[in-house]
Amino acid sequence: MSAVTDPSKLTVTTGAIVGSHKVYLESERFPGMRVPMREITLEGGEEPVRVYDTSGPYTDATASIDINKGLAPVRAEWIKARGDVEVYQGRDVKPEDNGVAMAEVGKVHAFDRSTREVLRAKPGANVSQMHYAKQGIVTAEMEYVAIRENMKQSEIRDRVTAGEGFGAKIPDEITGEFVRDEIAAGRAIIPANINHPELEPMIIGRNFLVKINANIGNSAVSSSIAEEVEKMVWSTRWGGDTVMDLSTGKHIHNTREWILRNSPAPIGTVPIYQALEKCDGVAEDLTWELFRDTLIEQCEQGVSYFTIHAGVRLRYVPMTAKRVTGIVSRGGSILAKWCLSHHEENFLYTNFREICEICAKYDVSFSLGDGLRPGCIADANDEAQFAELETLGELTKVAWEYDVQVMIEGPGHVPMHLIKENMDKQLKECHEAPFYTLGPLTTDIAPGYDHITSAIGAAMIGWYGTAMLCYVTPKEHLGLPNRDDVREGVVTYKLAAHAADLAKGHPAARVRDDALSKARFDFRWSDDFILALDPEKALSFHDETLPAEGAKSAHFCSMCGPKFCSMKITEEIREYAKSGMSEMSEKFKETGSEVYVEAE
Amino acid sequence: MSAVTDPSKLTVTTGAIVGSHKVYLESERFPGMRVPMREITLEGGEEPVRVYDTSGPYTDATASIDINKGLAPVRAEWIKARGDVEVYQGRDVKPEDNGVAMAEVGKVHAFDRSTREVLRAKPGANVSQMHYAKQGIVTAEMEYVAIRENMKQSEIRDRVTAGEGFGAKIPDEITGEFVRDEIAAGRAIIPANINHPELEPMIIGRNFLVKINANIGNSAVSSSIAEEVEKMVWSTRWGGDTVMDLSTGKHIHNTREWILRNSPAPIGTVPIYQALEKCDGVAEDLTWELFRDTLIEQCEQGVSYFTIHAGVRLRYVPMTAKRVTGIVSRGGSILAKWCLSHHEENFLYTNFREICEICAKYDVSFSLGDGLRPGCIADANDEAQFAELETLGELTKVAWEYDVQVMIEGPGHVPMHLIKENMDKQLKECHEAPFYTLGPLTTDIAPGYDHITSAIGAAMIGWYGTAMLCYVTPKEHLGLPNRDDVREGVVTYKLAAHAADLAKGHPAARVRDDALSKARFDFRWSDDFILALDPEKALSFHDETLPAEGAKSAHFCSMCGPKFCSMKITEEIREYAKSGMSEMSEKFKETGSEVYVEAE
Repeated sequence: MSAVTDPSKLTVTTGAIVGSHKVYLESERFPGMRVPMREITLEGGEEPVRVYDTSGPYTDATASIDINKGLAPVRAEWIKARGDVEVYQGRDVKPEDNGVAMAEVGKVHAFDRSTREVLRAKPGANVSQMHYAKQGIVTAEMEYVAIRENMKQSEIRDRVTAGEGFGAKIPDEITGEFVRDEIAAGRAIIPANINHPELEPMIIGRNFLVKINANIGNSAVSSSIAEEVEKMVWSTRWGGDTVMDLSTGKHIHNTREWILRNSPAPIGTVPIYQALEKCDGVAEDLTWELFRDTLIEQCEQGVSYFTIHAGVRLRYVPMTAKRVTGIVSRGGSILAKWCLSHHEENFLYTNFREICEICAKYDVSFSLGDGLRPGCIADANDEAQFAELETLGELTKVAWEYDVQVMIEGPGHVPMHLIKENMDKQLKECHEAPFYTLGPLTTDIAPGYDHITSAIGAAMIGWYGTAMLCYVTPKEHLGLPNRDDVREGVVTYKLAAHAADLAKGHPAARVRDDALSKARFDFRWSDDFILALDPEKALSFHDETLPAEGAKSAHFCSMCGPKFCSMKITEEIREYAKSGMSEMSEKFKETGSEVYVEAE
Repeated sequence: MSAVTDPSKLTVTTGAIVGSHKVYLESERFPGMRVPMREITLEGGEEPVRVYDTSGPYTDATASIDINKGLAPVRAEWIKARGDVEVYQGRDVKPEDNGVAMAEVGKVHAFDRSTREVLRAKPGANVSQMHYAKQGIVTAEMEYVAIRENMKQSEIRDRVTAGEGFGAKIPDEITGEFVRDEIAAGRAIIPANINHPELEPMIIGRNFLVKINANIGNSAVSSSIAEEVEKMVWSTRWGGDTVMDLSTGKHIHNTREWILRNSPAPIGTVPIYQALEKCDGVAEDLTWELFRDTLIEQCEQGVSYFTIHAGVRLRYVPMTAKRVTGIVSRGGSILAKWCLSHHEENFLYTNFREICEICAKYDVSFSLGDGLRPGCIADANDEAQFAELETLGELTKVAWEYDVQVMIEGPGHVPMHLIKENMDKQLKECHEAPFYTLGPLTTDIAPGYDHITSAIGAAMIGWYGTAMLCYVTPKEHLGLPNRDDVREGVVTYKLAAHAADLAKGHPAARVRDDALSKARFDFRWSDDFILALDPEKALSFHDETLPAEGAKSAHFCSMCGPKFCSMKITEEIREYAKSGMSEMSEKFKETGSEVYVEAE
């Protein structure tokens, strides 16, 4: 657990995802910018399919990966070119940042930051993407996400844009200007701390592809730094758009540094977790000064969004006393306890403007936490939950005064018929700031399957307008997810997000479904697998029943067997149809040969 | 595959489900009737929780199970008491019933039927539940399902009935009379062939609990009789309400006999599959006479519902030629091929009235098949699909003339925004006959996870009004499900059905969610596990992280660890609240201490 980490053993998963390779699109506006995506090469003369790619350089077969050095700082030049940041001597790392006594500090190998600088906005400057957007500037980050979202799919003919978007307005082609306008309006955010130059910018907003977040984090009970770095690589390999580091044990600072320097995805945190570690777990001992120092620590490291539970107001806490499961948010319960034991208003609420000033200096986005979210079906959409949501709407407007980007966290556990009310109320109260929900779980009775109970709610609320879905693994409520659980959770949320994109009518969504279905119908088994969200699982499931290599080119599958195959029969029907049978059946139709005319 | 089966090796899974035992409720109307359910015993003085139980005598610790003898014929007396059936010498089993040459017949051990009779309606009689219902009779089967659905939960105070039922009308208490009226109206069916007296009656209709079906079946590629019987036991153990035997290989007749004599659940089939085996897989060689003989073979064995693809009309077939995936239903493609090669109307359509007459003699229900269901997102809700649905509505009315019970099969692959149209159109065109859907899958891009892509659609369409959901396993599109896949598929569909019941506001639904959530909040870990749909998985997942026995009574879990636990903190908040803190916070509220008043 707290053994000395041997950096040479810090290996991570690399290599192209089967059947695909990395391609880079270039920007006309920003020469030299290279936006990565994944291209899947198909058989039989089919057009290759480009898909959104969250996996970073780890899946680029030509990239050289050394996690002791970290990823290349692709954004460094863009940030400096804007002329509004200064290099400064960051805060010294303290033993309590790692939750250990001085004697233990050396036990976890620190990432070598000697070539890294710490940046902040120059005095009087504001470096947030929202600030630039409001000035009418299309930043490199905005251009990057426009190309990334668009995938040049506007070049594809016959794109399907039919859907029901419930007020979402997704254009046929995403441009840098559209991104800028969405960010200026607060409807989207690009979480991109200037001290995380290694990240590949991405956008969260309901007029873009639905995103997913994967949580990682050590805990008091188990796990190690090496595992945490690999979890980040692993979860972005399968499709995690952002990663939250929810560590609560020791060595939080050092672990986070390793993750950040190697992460192509924005990293989010819940700073109150680390602050509590610094108080040895005693919520009453938390102070604004300690919390503020923790924020700066994390801003300097490069965290791109903070969950801030500033909506857990003192007067809302008693509203939870009669709930079936009270307060289930860790952050929410810490702050509720602090409020009650001090008889004081939540210090995150009273100091919110100063938090905004800090975040604006580094472009850290808010993820305003729903500390009073329901922890079971019985508590869904109750007074406490909605009271907090209204406060989050109030705080959103305050944050926007400082041009700090905001998204809003949402539940939780909600039965299907109450899901839409969450979305509608969030849009109204929070002025269309992006919604970021945890599921919601649509029943409480399936522990061990909560990635599924929640994927149902996640797909629905994503369709209704939620911009990012926080994944849930099969271990939810039961234990810590292992490697397989993370993959299962990420892929499950990826499919839920995609189902939402399809239902919204996102123009870039259906290309992949159609390509896969066509491959399936043509018995191009290999194409079927490589177009799947999880090609390895698809292949291994197929091979369980029909392991022979020949079976992958066979014109049948194990469901029906060689003699009896519906897809094969349909091929024959098409041949019949071509040879004039459709005319014969048309003739039959004309005769009006209704068998039951006499019975009607 | 076709090895001689040693009956002594035909063992199946038995024993109570952990933490629960079988209880039987009695009927006042039918003395001696015992309706099984499962009662989960909780700790800490909590009321036991009764749950619907599909598992039959296999989970009754006091039952003696011998699958060579089959289950006790619980319905036999009810059927005979009605005085409208006759015993007759059934049709002789032919070698082609098992798809084998005479020399191979002995290779599969036949179930010993020497104590079994074959029944049919007396001349002029009709033994369908719909027929009795229309006469105003509450049958034993109707009383049984009323008790089973109701679970005496009307005795529980504070039941939650809030929900959105989209026109469903679920009463607070299910009575035999209500069941009768729903069946008479065609809004519900009790699939219960008089030749399957072993089954425990269940009801399918949108004013009842949402049901799920599990498919089993050998195929040309693999599996054996012993496996198939155990699959039936296994899938009903986890919650399968009905089981479809979709066998397509050899020994179909003998396998089905073993399944039927041991099944507490109604068995459905697609008779065209067996008929095609009798033609050695050549669809053009199918005849009405061969099909009719196959129907009678299965009626006499005790199949309770038949998928009949009578809606695949000749004139609809060309509508599928331009689809991305054509016809994906096996039955649909067989009949389409037959129609086109003979230039004739589907013989199931032209002979539909005779099929009704046969089914009425045994009380076999129709599951009118959607042979033209969409096989991919691109083909959803198209002309072919809806043309067939209209014909199924026409056939529903014909079947009702014969008092034959009807449900309607539905898709398939449908993006979320097109799901409700399916339900609305089905209700309208098919006169509120129960809908029975396969998923639908909400995206095509996740082979290996299609139990999840489809559980999303299944939960939604179940909420909208679908009465039964046909499960999908993780192996869908890839291979044959194994034991683990069947369990994963059944539990996934059980949770989807339950999510639908909750959203509809079914009064018997939320009791279990609330009991589990309360157990979770109270740190009654064992209760949390045994209330779960899959107690074994919940326990094993917990033990992966915290295997010690002590951890099951610990007031923390592995997610946060011992020092830092949100549930524990909430307990402390409640203590604070009790000790007068809520009054103090109320006082704070009264002062109107708004931090941001100056900023607004």
